[in-house]
Amino acid sequence: MTLFDKHRAVFERAQLACAERHCWSPFPEMPSKYPDTAAAQAAASARFQAQLDRPFVLDQPGTVGELGEEVSPYTQQPLGIRYPRADVDGLFAAAEKAMPAWADASIETRLGVLMEVLDTIYREHLFDVANAVMHTAGQSANMAYAGSGVNALDRGIEALVYAQMAWNAVAPTARWQRQFGSAQITLDKTYRRVPRGVAVCFTCASFPTWNAWPSMLASLATGNAVIVKPHPAAVLPMAISVRAFRGVLQAAGFDPNLVTMALDSVAEPIGKTLVQHPKTAIVDFTGSARFGHWVERHAHPALVFTETAGCNTVVIESADDLDAALRSLATTMCMFSAQMCTSPQNIYLPRAGVRTLQGVVPLDDVARRLAEAIDAIGSEPKKASMILAAIQSPQTLALMTQLQLQLQLQLQTEGARAGRVLLAPRAYTHPEYPHARTSTPLLIQTDTTQRALYGEERFGPIGFVIACDDAADALAQATTDVREFGGLTAFLYSQDEAFIATAEAAYARAGAQLTINLTGPMPLNFAAAYSDYHVTGLNPAGNASLTDLSFVASRFRIVQSRRPAAMS
Amino acid sequence: MTLFDKHRAVFERAQLACAERHCWSPFPEMPSKYPDTAAAQAAASARFQAQLDRPFVLDQPGTVGELGEEVSPYTQQPLGIRYPRADVDGLFAAAEKAMPAWADASIETRLGVLMEVLDTIYREHLFDVANAVMHTAGQSANMAYAGSGVNALDRGIEALVYAQMAWNAVAPTARWQRQFGSAQITLDKTYRRVPRGVAVCFTCASFPTWNAWPSMLASLATGNAVIVKPHPAAVLPMAISVRAFRGVLQAAGFDPNLVTMALDSVAEPIGKTLVQHPKTAIVDFTGSARFGHWVERHAHPALVFTETAGCNTVVIESADDLDAALRSLATTMCMFSAQMCTSPQNIYLPRAGVRTLQGVVPLDDVARRLAEAIDAIGSEPKKASMILAAIQSPQTLALMTQLQLQLQLQLQTEGARAGRVLLAPRAYTHPEYPHARTSTPLLIQTDTTQRALYGEERFGPIGFVIACDDAADALAQATTDVREFGGLTAFLYSQDEAFIATAEAAYARAGAQLTINLTGPMPLNFAAAYSDYHVTGLNPAGNASLTDLSFVASRFRIVQSRRPAAMS
Repeated sequence: MTLFDKHRAVFERAQLACAERHCWSPFPEMPSKYPDTAAAQAAASARFQAQLDRPFVLDQPGTVGELGEEVSPYTQQPLGIRYPRADVDGLFAAAEKAMPAWADASIETRLGVLMEVLDTIYREHLFDVANAVMHTAGQSANMAYAGSGVNALDRGIEALVYAQMAWNAVAPTARWQRQFGSAQITLDKTYRRVPRGVAVCFTCASFPTWNAWPSMLASLATGNAVIVKPHPAAVLPMAISVRAFRGVLQAAGFDPNLVTMALDSVAEPIGKTLVQHPKTAIVDFTGSARFGHWVERHAHPALVFTETAGCNTVVIESADDLDAALRSLATTMCMFSAQMCTSPQNIYLPRAGVRTLQGVVPLDDVARRLAEAIDAIGSEPKKASMILAAIQSPQTLALMTQLQLQLQLQLQTEGARAGRVLLAPRAYTHPEYPHARTSTPLLIQTDTTQRALYGEERFGPIGFVIACDDAADALAQATTDVREFGGLTAFLYSQDEAFIATAEAAYARAGAQLTINLTGPMPLNFAAAYSDYHVTGLNPAGNASLTDLSFVASRFRIVQSRRPAAMS
Repeated sequence: MTLFDKHRAVFERAQLACAERHCWSPFPEMPSKYPDTAAAQAAASARFQAQLDRPFVLDQPGTVGELGEEVSPYTQQPLGIRYPRADVDGLFAAAEKAMPAWADASIETRLGVLMEVLDTIYREHLFDVANAVMHTAGQSANMAYAGSGVNALDRGIEALVYAQMAWNAVAPTARWQRQFGSAQITLDKTYRRVPRGVAVCFTCASFPTWNAWPSMLASLATGNAVIVKPHPAAVLPMAISVRAFRGVLQAAGFDPNLVTMALDSVAEPIGKTLVQHPKTAIVDFTGSARFGHWVERHAHPALVFTETAGCNTVVIESADDLDAALRSLATTMCMFSAQMCTSPQNIYLPRAGVRTLQGVVPLDDVARRLAEAIDAIGSEPKKASMILAAIQSPQTLALMTQLQLQLQLQLQTEGARAGRVLLAPRAYTHPEYPHARTSTPLLIQTDTTQRALYGEERFGPIGFVIACDDAADALAQATTDVREFGGLTAFLYSQDEAFIATAEAAYARAGAQLTINLTGPMPLNFAAAYSDYHVTGLNPAGNASLTDLSFVASRFRIVQSRRPAAMS
C-alpha cells in the first residue's frame, strides 16, 4: 500500500469539504479527545523539559554554528535551546540538489508523503508542538493544541487539496493533428509541470504553524523545496516541524534537504538576504506589515505570498441582544491577548448610540458595558489565563504604555474630546505561571479625529471605541480604514437587513472577511479550515489567501515538448 | 435565449479541447474558407481606405485631444488616423463606475457577452482587424487573418474557459455547523468573488491582438474592467477591438466603459503613469524585455502578467534529413521577418558538424545550407512577400546595420575567428507594395566567445549560427542563454533518444517550450490555442502563460460573509 493509499480516504473527504466548505476535520478539536491524552501530554512535557538548555538535534547541511534566543512568555526565562546556524548558500545548494527526484515523483507520491508528515506530526509531535508554541508564542495550552495544532494540520491538508486540483488541471500528454496545406501533421505533446524552485517560508512569533504548514505544503506538493525562516523568538515549533518533515521525507526515500531551517537572530537578521537570494523562487511571508510590504516590493523575480496585518474593524449599528454581542466581542478581543492577525481592534459606533429592542443605548454606555465585559475576563485569573494567555513580546507592553502617553499628550493639547482610557492595562497573575508576561487589555474611547491613534495595527490587547457621526459614517470609516491600512476580518451587528446588505458590499470592496451578528461561545474570529478563506488579497493586509487556487497554481509552471508522433 | 445559451455549444467544445489539448477551432484557418470571403474582404478594404486620414470614432469618456502617428510598413506612408487622447484619470473613474454591475452579473452572463464579442469580431470585423494588423505591424494578409485573427480569437475563448474553471472552483454558499462547548453554532456563509479592479493591458507593435484578447478576456470574465494601452505604432487593431467590445457590452445592457483605450505617443509615453496609477489593479504587458522588467518591478501592488522576449534557441545534434530540418528552420526564421516572440534566433551547433545518415556534415556546410535555404526565400519576391512580409519598425533595419558594424569591429580586433556574415540583408521588392519596408535576413556565423553579439533578443530577421565544442556544449550553451536572457521557444534536431531526453530535461529547467525533429509545412513556432502553452514564467521572457490557471485565478479574490443561520 502506498502512502497515498494509506491516506486516500482522509484526502478525498477533505476534497469534499473544500468543495462544499462545510465543517469537518479528521482530528479531535479538544486535547481531551486525543488518544490517551494524559500519557501523550506527560511524555511531551518530559521531552520539552529535557530539551531546555540543550542543542536541538537537526541534522541538516551547512551548519556553521549555533543560535538561540527564545524566552518563554510563561516563565520569562530563556529556553536555552541552541539551534544550528546554517550557511544560507549551503541550504540552497542542498535544496536544489534534493528537488529533481521529488519533482519527478508523481503528485500522488508527494501527496502521500506529505499526508504522512501531517499524520506523523499529529500522532507523534502534537503536544511537542503545543508546548513549543506555548513557551515561545505564549498561547494557552488549549489554543496551542487547537489553533496551532489540529487546525493548522487541517489548513495543511486543505493546501494539499488545492495543490492537487491545480496540478491535475494540466493534461500530462496529448496527441495533436492538423492539416497544413496537403500535409497532415501529427504531434505528440508532453506537458511537464515544473516546480518553480526553492521556497523560503517566513514564520511569525505569535502563530507560527498555522500559516507555515499550508505554505510549506503548497510548495512541497507542487515539487518545490522549502527553507523555513522562523522568527528568532519562536523557533522551536518550526524546528520540530522541520525535523518531522525531514524524517518522513527520508523514510519515504527522498532527500530530507527538501525541508531545512535558516535561523537568524534579532541582532543579525537574514530576512533580506533570503528574499533577494538569486536562488529564491517563492517567498511565503507571515509577519509584520512593514517588512511584509518590503518583501512584496523586493522579492522580484521570486513569487510572493504574504499575510501581514491590519485594522480589524467592528461596526455596531443595532443589536437585539447587545450584551450578548458585547460579551462575544470582549472574549474575542481578549483571546490570546489579541495577538492574532484576525483579532478585532477598532469598534466604530454611531455617536447617538446603538439601537436595541429596549431603545437606543448611548455610546458611552455601550463603551462602558464593553469595558466591563473585558474587565470581567481580566479580573478572574483562571479565566484570564485561558483566554488572555501570555504576551509574546515585551515590545507589546511597551506599545501599550506608549499609546497611553500619546493619548495623554492629545488630551493636553486638544482637551477631553481627544478621548479617554476606558480600561488601563495591568498584569494579571497567571495561576500556573506566576512569572508569566501578562496584561489585561488597554481600551481607549476616542473619535475619528484621532485616526493617527488607531489607523494601523496596534499589535496586542489594544482596542479603540470610535465615535462616528452615524451608522453610515461608522461603516464608511471602518471600510476606508481597511482599504487604506489593511484588514483581515470585520464584524458587524445590525438588525437592519438593508444596512447589512450595504455593509456586505462595502466590506467586499474593502476585502475583509465579515462576520455578522454572531454571539455565543464561538470566538468571532475563528477561521475554519476547508470553509473560511483567510485574507483576501484586496487590501494591504496580505496578498494571498488560505487557501484558494491562486495560492497554489503559480507554484509550478508548465513546460511542454512536442515532436512528430511515431506513426504505426 | 441568453447569450451564453447561444454560445454554449462552442464554449463546451472549447472546454473539452482545453482538457484534452487536441487540435480544434470553431473558425476556418484560411481566409478562403471564411463565408463569402471576397465580399467580406472588399468591404473591409473599403472601410480601411475610408478610415485613412480621418478621426477614428471611439465614443469613450475623458477625451482631451487627438493622437495618431501610425505609418504603414507596406506603404511607408502615415495612416493619418487620429484617435482620441484620453484623460487617464477619467478612464479609471469611468471604469470603476462601470464595474459593479458587471461584477454582480453571473459568470455565465459575462461569458455569454464575451463570447458574443469574439463572435462579433469574427463575423463583422475580422478583415478589418487583418487590414489594421497588416498596415501597422507589417504582417502578411494570411498571417494577419490567422495569427492575429482566428488564432487570437481561439486564445480568447481559451482564456474564458480557464476563467470559468477558476471562478467555479469557489462554492458560492455553504452552511457550516459545529459544537462549541454545549452550543451548536450554525452559520450561513456567502463567498463573493470580487474582481481585483481596473486592468491595464499593454499591447505590442508586432502582434497586438494575440496576447491582448486573452488578457482582456481573462480580466473581463472575472469581473474587472480593462484599459487598453496600445503601442503607438499599432493602434488601429486595438481601436477596432475596443470599439467592438464596447458595442457588444452596451447592447447587452452593460456600461461600455468596461473597455476603453489610453493612447500615448512615442515622444510622450504614459506607460509608467498607467502602471503606477493608484487605481491600477492588474497589468498585462506584452512588449520589450526592458520595459517589461521595469513593469514587473514597479507595478506593486498591482498584479503583473508579462510576456516579453528572449533568445529562442535551436540545437542541432543530428538529423536523418538535414535539408528538411534546415528548410523548416529557414522558413520559420523568415516567417514575418522573425518579428515574433517565438521566432528562433540562435542556432547552436557542434563544432565538428552534424551527424546525418550520410555521415557528418561539417559545421560550415550546415551553415551554408541554412543560408542557402533562407536566401531561396528572400530571393523570390512572391514567396518573400508571403513569408517575410514587412518590417514593422525602421529601428529593426538600424539594428541589423549596427550588428554588422559590431561584427566588423570584432573582426578587426580578433580576426576571422570572431565570425562572419553568412547572409547580408537587403530590401526585397514586394510585388504588391513597391514601397514596403522589407529586408531579407541577416545571418551571422560565430562562436561562443561572441556571446555579447547574440546573448539577447535581436528583434527582427537576425540569426546566429554558433559553433560550440560539441553537442553537449551546444545544449548547455543554449539552455544557459535561455535561463539568463530568457527564451520562449526552443528547437531540437537529434536522432539520439538519450540526447533528446537530456535536452527535454534541460529545457524544462530553463523554461522554454521545446519542439523536436519537426519538419514539413508547419511553422516550427506555431502555437496552437487549447494545446500549446505560451511562455512558461520560468525565465526572464515573461512571468505568465497563455493559458493556465495561474493566468486567471488571481484576477479575482474571495470575500466571505457569514452569519448565524435563520433556523426554521
